[in-house]
Amino acid sequence: MILKKVEKEPRAAAYPAPAALVSAYGKRGKPNAMTAAWISNICADPVTLVVGIRDTRYTYELIVKNGCFGVNIPNVKIAKEADYFGIVSGRDVDKFKETGLTVFKGTEVKVPLIKECPINIECKLTKQVKIGTHDAFFGEVLKVYYDESIINENGSPDILLADVLAYGTGNYYSLKSIIGGYGYSRKSEQFSHLFEEIQSDD
Amino acid sequence: MILKKVEKEPRAAAYPAPAALVSAYGKRGKPNAMTAAWISNICADPVTLVVGIRDTRYTYELIVKNGCFGVNIPNVKIAKEADYFGIVSGRDVDKFKETGLTVFKGTEVKVPLIKECPINIECKLTKQVKIGTHDAFFGEVLKVYYDESIINENGSPDILLADVLAYGTGNYYSLKSIIGGYGYSRKSEQFSHLFEEIQSDD
Repeated sequence: MILKKVEKEPRAAAYPAPAALVSAYGKRGKPNAMTAAWISNICADPVTLVVGIRDTRYTYELIVKNGCFGVNIPNVKIAKEADYFGIVSGRDVDKFKETGLTVFKGTEVKVPLIKECPINIECKLTKQVKIGTHDAFFGEVLKVYYDESIINENGSPDILLADVLAYGTGNYYSLKSIIGGYGYSRKSEQFSHLFEEIQSDD
Repeated sequence: MILKKVEKEPRAAAYPAPAALVSAYGKRGKPNAMTAAWISNICADPVTLVVGIRDTRYTYELIVKNGCFGVNIPNVKIAKEADYFGIVSGRDVDKFKETGLTVFKGTEVKVPLIKECPINIECKLTKQVKIGTHDAFFGEVLKVYYDESIINENGSPDILLADVLAYGTGNYYSLKSIIGGYGYSRKSEQFSHLFEEIQSDD
């Protein structure tokens, strides 16, 4: 049964998203970061992600100045800290001092990365596109760090093991369980017959 | 305690993401869609999202031709269908016929939207930026549809009620529970003292 659809005016609706902490060095080498849910991987080669940042933000200014930024994926344990990083400005406070989160330095570009986040990404700014209130910053991924504890028995990182936060429709959520792996429909009874004759594309 | 970090070569790591179904009309008005996890809201005004699509994709061709596309957020109930839409091409098969998913027409632009998805978004293509293997397609959001059943008691949509899929590190996941609402650190005992004197920014 298809339920009734409610029509709404335009709004952000492509969720869930990461509650990522986008980090950059500020004045006198002081690390800063802001929470950004409007972020996504965008290209396979060169590996690139994109993040939307409002031009009034301190982090906006720092990324433009530095030409690089870090992306850090927080877990449920530091959810309050992640929220705090999104509602105050690094112009007014030292968010790291206030929350107790700590940083390590990137090796590829000059970015602060957040130790307590199970996933860290070093990015070089490669393109900046003005959209409206927000610019889209494209960052080429130069290196990725995972906490050893989030690597599964196959040697792959797992965001469920990492207990990452998901953001959407005004809330932070935790993940429950794996529904299936990419391509799992191919092996399912319901769909396997569909794969007998066709060639998949990339 | 900070666990050991494992360094990896560049790869997509900004997760979780939606397992969105990006839809467009094809030849002879036949609806098509592909699964795209590389998608995000990107701008507040004009409300805009961005999706990364490989230039070999049939959907890439259709979006360029039509100048518009739909975004549909699937739930756990149709996880296998969502996976299937990502591993076969609309050049070879009619994915809607094969899966039984059904469409309704957008009212703002000529896009097919997927009834069985609890969230549907109509987008007009406003910018296309070549990054590498993938182009970033920017879509201005013209209208959003929610299943009535995912609107909570405050009148707001909730992706937990919607039981949306989260994608990341090769798997589809379900959401477990709300950790907190945006801004909830402000009210927490741990952080409330930090808000006494500062002014938050946007």
